[in-house]
Amino acid sequence: MTSDWKSVAAQKKAALEASIPAEWRIETLPTDGSVMSFPKTSGILTPDELAITESSATDLVRDLASGKITSVAVTTAFCKRAAVAHQLANCFHEFFPEIALGRAKYLDEYLAENKKPIGPLHGLPISLKDQVRIKGLETTMGYVSWIGKKDTEDSVLTTMLLNAGAVLYVKTSVPQSLMVCETVNNIFGRTTNPRNKNWSCGGSSGGEGAIVGIRGGIIGVGTDIGGSIRVPAAFNFIYGLRPSHGRLPYAKMANSMEGQETVHSVCGPLTHSVADMRLFVTSVLFQKPWSYDSKVVPIPWRQEEEDAIKNKIASRSLTLGYFSCDGEVLPHPPILRGVQTVVDKLSEAGHTVLPWEPYKHPYAVDLANRVYASDGGVVSRPVILTIPLPPPLMHSQDIFGTLNASGEPAIPNIADLVNPNLPKMSINEVWQVQLDKWNYQSEYLAKIREFETKIGRELDAIIAPITPTAAIRHNQFKYYGYASAINILDFTSVVVPVTFADKGVDKVNEGFAPLGEMDKIVQGEYDPEVYHGAPVAVQIIGRRLTEERVMAIAEEVGRLLGNEITP
Amino acid sequence: MTSDWKSVAAQKKAALEASIPAEWRIETLPTDGSVMSFPKTSGILTPDELAITESSATDLVRDLASGKITSVAVTTAFCKRAAVAHQLANCFHEFFPEIALGRAKYLDEYLAENKKPIGPLHGLPISLKDQVRIKGLETTMGYVSWIGKKDTEDSVLTTMLLNAGAVLYVKTSVPQSLMVCETVNNIFGRTTNPRNKNWSCGGSSGGEGAIVGIRGGIIGVGTDIGGSIRVPAAFNFIYGLRPSHGRLPYAKMANSMEGQETVHSVCGPLTHSVADMRLFVTSVLFQKPWSYDSKVVPIPWRQEEEDAIKNKIASRSLTLGYFSCDGEVLPHPPILRGVQTVVDKLSEAGHTVLPWEPYKHPYAVDLANRVYASDGGVVSRPVILTIPLPPPLMHSQDIFGTLNASGEPAIPNIADLVNPNLPKMSINEVWQVQLDKWNYQSEYLAKIREFETKIGRELDAIIAPITPTAAIRHNQFKYYGYASAINILDFTSVVVPVTFADKGVDKVNEGFAPLGEMDKIVQGEYDPEVYHGAPVAVQIIGRRLTEERVMAIAEEVGRLLGNEITP
Repeated sequence: MTSDWKSVAAQKKAALEASIPAEWRIETLPTDGSVMSFPKTSGILTPDELAITESSATDLVRDLASGKITSVAVTTAFCKRAAVAHQLANCFHEFFPEIALGRAKYLDEYLAENKKPIGPLHGLPISLKDQVRIKGLETTMGYVSWIGKKDTEDSVLTTMLLNAGAVLYVKTSVPQSLMVCETVNNIFGRTTNPRNKNWSCGGSSGGEGAIVGIRGGIIGVGTDIGGSIRVPAAFNFIYGLRPSHGRLPYAKMANSMEGQETVHSVCGPLTHSVADMRLFVTSVLFQKPWSYDSKVVPIPWRQEEEDAIKNKIASRSLTLGYFSCDGEVLPHPPILRGVQTVVDKLSEAGHTVLPWEPYKHPYAVDLANRVYASDGGVVSRPVILTIPLPPPLMHSQDIFGTLNASGEPAIPNIADLVNPNLPKMSINEVWQVQLDKWNYQSEYLAKIREFETKIGRELDAIIAPITPTAAIRHNQFKYYGYASAINILDFTSVVVPVTFADKGVDKVNEGFAPLGEMDKIVQGEYDPEVYHGAPVAVQIIGRRLTEERVMAIAEEVGRLLGNEITP
Repeated sequence: MTSDWKSVAAQKKAALEASIPAEWRIETLPTDGSVMSFPKTSGILTPDELAITESSATDLVRDLASGKITSVAVTTAFCKRAAVAHQLANCFHEFFPEIALGRAKYLDEYLAENKKPIGPLHGLPISLKDQVRIKGLETTMGYVSWIGKKDTEDSVLTTMLLNAGAVLYVKTSVPQSLMVCETVNNIFGRTTNPRNKNWSCGGSSGGEGAIVGIRGGIIGVGTDIGGSIRVPAAFNFIYGLRPSHGRLPYAKMANSMEGQETVHSVCGPLTHSVADMRLFVTSVLFQKPWSYDSKVVPIPWRQEEEDAIKNKIASRSLTLGYFSCDGEVLPHPPILRGVQTVVDKLSEAGHTVLPWEPYKHPYAVDLANRVYASDGGVVSRPVILTIPLPPPLMHSQDIFGTLNASGEPAIPNIADLVNPNLPKMSINEVWQVQLDKWNYQSEYLAKIREFETKIGRELDAIIAPITPTAAIRHNQFKYYGYASAINILDFTSVVVPVTFADKGVDKVNEGFAPLGEMDKIVQGEYDPEVYHGAPVAVQIIGRRLTEERVMAIAEEVGRLLGNEITP
């Protein structure tokens, strides 16, 4: 059985590599350091193609709609750059440039014939995390036992992207199980960070983080149940939107623990700007996704909500809360500096920024961990094992059942994260967690109301770390709490890239007194040398279903930091 | 233990009865027939008080706001009529006229001093199902073991009603467990239908159905997880709104199976008109309940949605689907006539009414039943037991745990509904049901889109039975499917009263060929004599979170039927 899964996986991997045309292959791979500039010097992309891939989606759709550039040209450029990205960072699961170019040709002909674009994303390539189904292709999600099963229908989001005129060309890598914030599986191996192959690209939408980070993609689709959009966005110095549950359609995607609804996984875009993020969201919402996916709430794009924030920006009257520590794990020095940088920029711009007391975040993190582990065994907060446990003791029924179907082993991240002493939850325990979550969420709302009453004005958003570390070394990601507490709250969150770790500035925290074991482990991992240059991000958090507002604030933060293209 | 629970229950019941002042007591109770006109002839209410209770909430709040009438006068009128209603139909759990009159006095003084009402419900009495918590009062929900536990905080809805200016004066009866559509428990006994004490008032918001039906209440708050607002509305010839989950705040109410989120219970009003229903909904929504209860979606009242329907009404261009049979149980002749009456009225008015094929409703009903029974043993579709089972075999952990805490037995409805062979669901089985539900909901949306494509216009709503019978005899309610399929879909539904069963018209269905065992049992129960005069209703169903639209259509149906006061 063991040899069998290996050969099945090897065949799949070989088929993937064969999908890259010879003329897009890198002859000599770089051995070390950042590969971010490699696409420019590779000779594989023409100067025009480089310019296309370094443009914005907002500009590209404008030029595609007017016929100034063709979808074939844009698609070719992104297919080439993606192929380069994959050879550098190993970010593909499925690559189908021929299908993409066929689609691009069709769209170019459509425009020529009809003198108008087919939709707001006319001709634009969009990359998809390997949970999104495309009829006729495979969705392995990195599971050996799922190899060879072709999808018989599109995910609802696929349908909407195609209706909007998008070109689909690649499905990107995820970690086995999706339940970790790094990206490695037994079929395709590990995806690395284009800025440093010793760093993680994040996860579980790690392939999207890497491919969009190095501009082999311009808008990527990820999913997030405990940071899986936001962590890869943070580690790759790009933007990421975790909308609230019910805003964007998730129906008919593949998933782990399908049917688990205590904490919903959501889908959202990873982009280089809020403008591109908004393009994606509006292109989906105008199609009324609530008529297709029953979980989507019938809230169209609310321009008046964005405008309310823009008016506050214009009058320098945003009111923001912020916190640097959630009470469980203190972030590394680069992250603390990142939060302070954002606070300073906003304050200097005349906005009001006040300390926010994170209400019972460790409790929320515990709730999230109980949910992630609810069908037995997987916990996102690791139990530190001193004795390796034999595989039969690992038992998430859903995840380990899928592994057992092929005989493949668990990846180290998962294997380390298994607590065999944690029993499967009973239905009454699930109900209790759900009730606890509801009460906690409502208490959090009460805290916001109290805060607003105290300061006499509306709290527009909260600024917080998204991870306690800058882009981390492999197999070191341990604390999910900055992300997962927000999943428990189902608050809208946008990750904004801020700066880079700097060994000259971000010294080891000498006076550090650990809050607990996890805090000690995480802080102990900080090393100014190895983190030097690693991306640092924050998240901007707003209440449930406030995407228009939070995106507008994130855009302003990006503008103040000088890393945002304002349309 | 047995004698103990009985004495505890008897004391509670005696305390309730003692809450009715001597001057509001009926000397000689009627022995038979309808008691609907009894309040008028009882001599307990003055002519002015009778006029107040027979007004509309919309008119009353207008006159309360202007100071034309006082809240003390209105509250006194409703307290008196409610006291009469209780003595006739046994619909109280808690009655607190002194608190209510104190509140009314405060509101009258507020108006005199401030020259403006405190909120849109200023001074209006509102009755509450005994799940809604009021600080300092009890919420027994009919469980002996909950007697004596005073609530330490208000439900979110309570807070919003008080903020809006409502006067709370009564908490009304529910069946033990809430999970049946009749109303009987071991503390307070059985609530009867004011139109005929041999008929059920429906359930689980049965006390609300009875009290609003006989105008001891003007707007009542109910909850619905499988018909519990809609069935009492139907059986008492009033309107009932089952909003979609997330529209109105449910936080901090008592419930059975708390934390169960596979099918959400929702709260909504029972009223005499859609205008009064709208008054209730807008009075809550303007307070942004999503800032208090995390499950409420941030959708304010959308006047443009109501207006879209009103424009169609004006141009006689509504498009409605309808069905009379869900494929599992054929309704009794009065219900079939009720549906046809609505179809005819709408068609005569120039609207388009087309047959709708109910998509896999029996499957939806099965899903609902699996959820209702998911913690072991309670099924809403009864297994017909030939041998009575000893109590120890009954085992909904939540419900039977609560019964065992006092030693009280299950009510017959529950006892009959227990299937001891049904095991508690595992977490993976819960996830499967949740996935099945999501897929089914999305398939239903696809059917609507197909239908709309075929007819080339938007489907505005679907007209359907809410129960297969008119107001039913006690202990006969067996088939919940017309209600529960809509709970599975989480569609918005408004019950509209239509007509009354008529033995001269609604003859036994002679050619009846049963679709199955349940169909045979339900149809076999029809007897034109005993149903003569029983209320007949339909429900108007729209997609998720379309309350403004469905209410506007229901208002038009009521107007066409001649039973709706148009404001």
